[in-house]
Amino acid sequence: MKRNKLVIVGVGHVGSYVLADAMKLDLFAEISVIDIDKNVAFGEALDQAHATALTYMSNTTVRAGDYSECADADVIICAAGPSMLKSEEDAMPDRAKLASVNSEIIREVMTGITKYTKDAIVILITNPLDTMLYIAENEFGYPKGRVFGTGTMLDSARLRKIIAINYDIDPKSVTGYMMGEHGHTAFPVLSRLNVQGFGEKELDQVFQGKEPMSREGIKQKVVHAAFDVLNGKGWTNAGVAQAAVTLAKAILLDERSVYPVSTTLHGQYGYDGDVALSMPCIIGRNGVEKQLEIALDEQELEWLHQSAQYIQEAMKVAGTGKAKIHN
Amino acid sequence: MKRNKLVIVGVGHVGSYVLADAMKLDLFAEISVIDIDKNVAFGEALDQAHATALTYMSNTTVRAGDYSECADADVIICAAGPSMLKSEEDAMPDRAKLASVNSEIIREVMTGITKYTKDAIVILITNPLDTMLYIAENEFGYPKGRVFGTGTMLDSARLRKIIAINYDIDPKSVTGYMMGEHGHTAFPVLSRLNVQGFGEKELDQVFQGKEPMSREGIKQKVVHAAFDVLNGKGWTNAGVAQAAVTLAKAILLDERSVYPVSTTLHGQYGYDGDVALSMPCIIGRNGVEKQLEIALDEQELEWLHQSAQYIQEAMKVAGTGKAKIHN
Amino acid sequence: MKRNKLVIVGVGHVGSYVLADAMKLDLFAEISVIDIDKNVAFGEALDQAHATALTYMSNTTVRAGDYSECADADVIICAAGPSMLKSEEDAMPDRAKLASVNSEIIREVMTGITKYTKDAIVILITNPLDTMLYIAENEFGYPKGRVFGTGTMLDSARLRKIIAINYDIDPKSVTGYMMGEHGHTAFPVLSRLNVQGFGEKELDQVFQGKEPMSREGIKQKVVHAAFDVLNGKGWTNAGVAQAAVTLAKAILLDERSVYPVSTTLHGQYGYDGDVALSMPCIIGRNGVEKQLEIALDEQELEWLHQSAQYIQEAMKVAGTGKAKIHN
Amino acid sequence: MKRNKLVIVGVGHVGSYVLADAMKLDLFAEISVIDIDKNVAFGEALDQAHATALTYMSNTTVRAGDYSECADADVIICAAGPSMLKSEEDAMPDRAKLASVNSEIIREVMTGITKYTKDAIVILITNPLDTMLYIAENEFGYPKGRVFGTGTMLDSARLRKIIAINYDIDPKSVTGYMMGEHGHTAFPVLSRLNVQGFGEKELDQVFQGKEPMSREGIKQKVVHAAFDVLNGKGWTNAGVAQAAVTLAKAILLDERSVYPVSTTLHGQYGYDGDVALSMPCIIGRNGVEKQLEIALDEQELEWLHQSAQYIQEAMKVAGTGKAKIHN
Repeated sequence: MKRNKLVIVGVGHVGSYVLADAMKLDLFAEISVIDIDKNVAFGEALDQAHATALTYMSNTTVRAGDYSECADADVIICAAGPSMLKSEEDAMPDRAKLASVNSEIIREVMTGITKYTKDAIVILITNPLDTMLYIAENEFGYPKGRVFGTGTMLDSARLRKIIAINYDIDPKSVTGYMMGEHGHTAFPVLSRLNVQGFGEKELDQVFQGKEPMSREGIKQKVVHAAFDVLNGKGWTNAGVAQAAVTLAKAILLDERSVYPVSTTLHGQYGYDGDVALSMPCIIGRNGVEKQLEIALDEQELEWLHQSAQYIQEAMKVAGTGKAKIHN
Repeated sequence: MKRNKLVIVGVGHVGSYVLADAMKLDLFAEISVIDIDKNVAFGEALDQAHATALTYMSNTTVRAGDYSECADADVIICAAGPSMLKSEEDAMPDRAKLASVNSEIIREVMTGITKYTKDAIVILITNPLDTMLYIAENEFGYPKGRVFGTGTMLDSARLRKIIAINYDIDPKSVTGYMMGEHGHTAFPVLSRLNVQGFGEKELDQVFQGKEPMSREGIKQKVVHAAFDVLNGKGWTNAGVAQAAVTLAKAILLDERSVYPVSTTLHGQYGYDGDVALSMPCIIGRNGVEKQLEIALDEQELEWLHQSAQYIQEAMKVAGTGKAKIHN
Repeated sequence: MKRNKLVIVGVGHVGSYVLADAMKLDLFAEISVIDIDKNVAFGEALDQAHATALTYMSNTTVRAGDYSECADADVIICAAGPSMLKSEEDAMPDRAKLASVNSEIIREVMTGITKYTKDAIVILITNPLDTMLYIAENEFGYPKGRVFGTGTMLDSARLRKIIAINYDIDPKSVTGYMMGEHGHTAFPVLSRLNVQGFGEKELDQVFQGKEPMSREGIKQKVVHAAFDVLNGKGWTNAGVAQAAVTLAKAILLDERSVYPVSTTLHGQYGYDGDVALSMPCIIGRNGVEKQLEIALDEQELEWLHQSAQYIQEAMKVAGTGKAKIHN
Repeated sequence: MKRNKLVIVGVGHVGSYVLADAMKLDLFAEISVIDIDKNVAFGEALDQAHATALTYMSNTTVRAGDYSECADADVIICAAGPSMLKSEEDAMPDRAKLASVNSEIIREVMTGITKYTKDAIVILITNPLDTMLYIAENEFGYPKGRVFGTGTMLDSARLRKIIAINYDIDPKSVTGYMMGEHGHTAFPVLSRLNVQGFGEKELDQVFQGKEPMSREGIKQKVVHAAFDVLNGKGWTNAGVAQAAVTLAKAILLDERSVYPVSTTLHGQYGYDGDVALSMPCIIGRNGVEKQLEIALDEQELEWLHQSAQYIQEAMKVAGTGKAKIHN
């Protein structure tokens, strides 16, 4: 009898939180943990295994393993590679710099995974996310939709929280998202923002916010939210881990929820297989069931192109791109 | 109107997991985070705040603060101080060594807390746990029962998991616990072990375990489980964090659950205000509602006295004890 | 020490589901059940009490009681009175007919509650909802905002589900609601509908729905959804019970979520203390923290006035209204 | 891609609560509802479908259907047939009387199920439970272990709650169960009772119970608990529904939890294929993975034989038994 199975690749700051959150989903019968440092994988799995003996916890089987664990996995979440790091010279981390290091790691991981499966849905978290996803999706013949990146799920959560705090309401009452790169060129799609019916232009009047709504201001606040967390605790993991398990649940339960995730564009916004970025997608049992090309206004389109260009530069650093795929 | 409030003191490896788990309880309207490194507290709170904007998450208010946050807290969980660390010369960490460092930290923390409240229920995690709890409970006039330590909650989870794995069953089907010190002199109360009716002597016959049941073997396995996690990932946090929030829930919902936690003994097993260790206690809205002195067999009693003696030595290192309290 | 407490008044088809759902919230330490049939209250409480002894269940204290239970309640959910009933001559139930019966019941209930508290937040479910809420809010001097009705929470869930099914997506990805009466004059605010950025006019093109979007069609489908359930099983309870406990959670956790609930209008849409109906409101620890008057288009405004008029007719039947209040 | 699927057969008082509880498990992607009254099945499914559009709810697909839904089901829960009913002449319901009515219903249900699957795990709730389970397990060639009855899961919950209330503790801190018939000959296995280490003889001394522990008293209290609920509300459903979904979760997550459920005995306690009753069993992905024959004391053995005999009489009424199976 088939048992629901999750594999987590990489249990550093991010992967360990993905594991912790996944243990609380009460959805997977088995969770296997893979890390280049086998001791860490073993320790993380064992610590979580002990927690299953406490009241209220499901008896999920959790263990360390190798890529053969992927053979019967339903979902694989990849958080391998160093996460966003503080640049030494600079207050702002340089995601592009990570591209060359992590592109090799992602190629190793995808080689490991594809040795055993092309059926599992792969959720990628590794940064720079869009470039890593482009590699994973395009260089390994993985079926369309079955690999995608958490993308701007987290940036979007930050957007909603910032708006929610400004207007003193529940972020679940805010509908809105960021598109583009997961990172500092991500942009808010404020033309489509909806707070239980109220749009961008109406919020200040209705809710008496702490600060007036400003597109540029919001965009910068969201990007800076990442650095606020990073500068505070040294890394970010709680938000993105929760994003990843939310996607895993949408897949297992075939919820067909619409979330902004990163996939390669094929015709949308004028891009054709030459960039991956986040746009709203339907997430179901087959991963990305459909990409939803939403009409953007002029400023948003400009932001999108800036973001795409920025990603394509990172792709070059990582030695990937349309030219490579189609040779 | 009163809102349920949790304060977490110390958000290192352990406290950050307590925070993450507490955010998922859907029980506290407010969670405040205190850390000597204000940046870390800020970063952890902000990261978790972002996660509240994701599907399924409650809009818990989470923020960094100072001890004044304790004034209206229902529960305070203290994970301040370095957690169990690998000794440099030794494979086994020396909890006694931690005693002198962490005793000062606990005194600072309790000074901070008691400036604002003696009503909140304080759950202590800091190691060496029993010594730290003795200080917190006895040196600050905190009302009896309102401060206690996670104690052997975690050791007991490990015991149940080890037995469950050996006999290939759910650890929730195993009733049993460790008593004494939280640490390497903890001992299993196997005379009272109960696997859905089956006792210590019957398990091998009924369940065909991987290894035959042995008291000494089990005791060592449980102690080594901690070091297996520690040596693997560098620290332990998942299990103990889950233990702490399980206790917090028992308090808020006034569940009156029986858990092995650490409190000062007053007459039990011949100790009178001179040691704190873990024994089964009823946990409810007032913290430890009652200590339950269970009759032990000869071997278990010997283990208990060894454990108490070991704790008392750490208490000396930490400059606490009955003599100090009653002067 | 204060314990979170819920009181449920009336445990028929609806109230028994509210109880069942509330037991799973893991949020209330105590739940008390009041019913004019004390045996039913006793039986429901006892049945749920037995369930607390099963794995994963919190040890919530649940018992039958009388109105004195309200004295220290945080939240009171009232589902007293016969729920929506099939009219004998007619396929469509007549909510107005219920008005005269249930208005007396609500007056008894509010008399019982206000004997012990005006602090608890009262969530009303009894139909015809808006008329009953008008009585409860205005005839007993209950503090503004502390009593409100589930209103179009359920109608709105139906709206989102109908749209979600038509476009084969998760209803959680649909932002939208019904306003006006809870019942057959409720109307969809489609001018404000938002499916992760996509509006009313874009859905058909983007999602290839089963049927084309039509305002009148949607409005009728939502109203008929109630009768489909009613004609199928004889009553409706699952949806409205879930709505009520979602509100209870928003209150206890002070989430400040925006939900469409029923309260008396004071200036909104030209009504001043003469009708209660559902419009988006911020729900927090004080109940309705704020009513949010959203601009409607011409058709929606017409629907609103039709709905208000219909409610006012039921109010007359129930012997309530502005004239009565201000005498 | 396989989706987790539950089928519920029969959505009367019990089945509708099973459905409500299952919707909250967040574990099944699909739930299908079958009832001889197709309108009721349709109405229940639709009502629950509406609830999925509320905050915090998973987008589980729920619909009415026929037995073909069983073809790809992981778990089937059967609550078909009238539940325990108040006898007209008698305060005590007569489960034996139900035997002749419900045996025909169970045969129809099993005929329907086995037309499409012998792989799904079938959990039976229909009363008289043990007789119905005997028919389902033995007359249809269903693979051993894949069909079993909720049995004394509920009676055991009542036992634990009664003990917990007497000693003012959390029922989750009580380990113990009833064996034998699900019904009035069920008996408590008090020789194996364990309250976090404390046994039958120690409880009164340690916990200062409201009433002294008495085997006969406890046995009668548990049996009367059912009638207290029944006489109060007219049926019992909350407890047994929760028991059923707890078993469904143990199956899906392959938890290997030990629960007292009803299966046919093959050698245990001297019975060989001639009776089904509840004894502790390991529940995993294959249903009953193992029956655990626990040694009983003299009184308990006598109770067991009385219970077996009572069940065998009901089996005769239902026209089933060893003779029938082996012809």
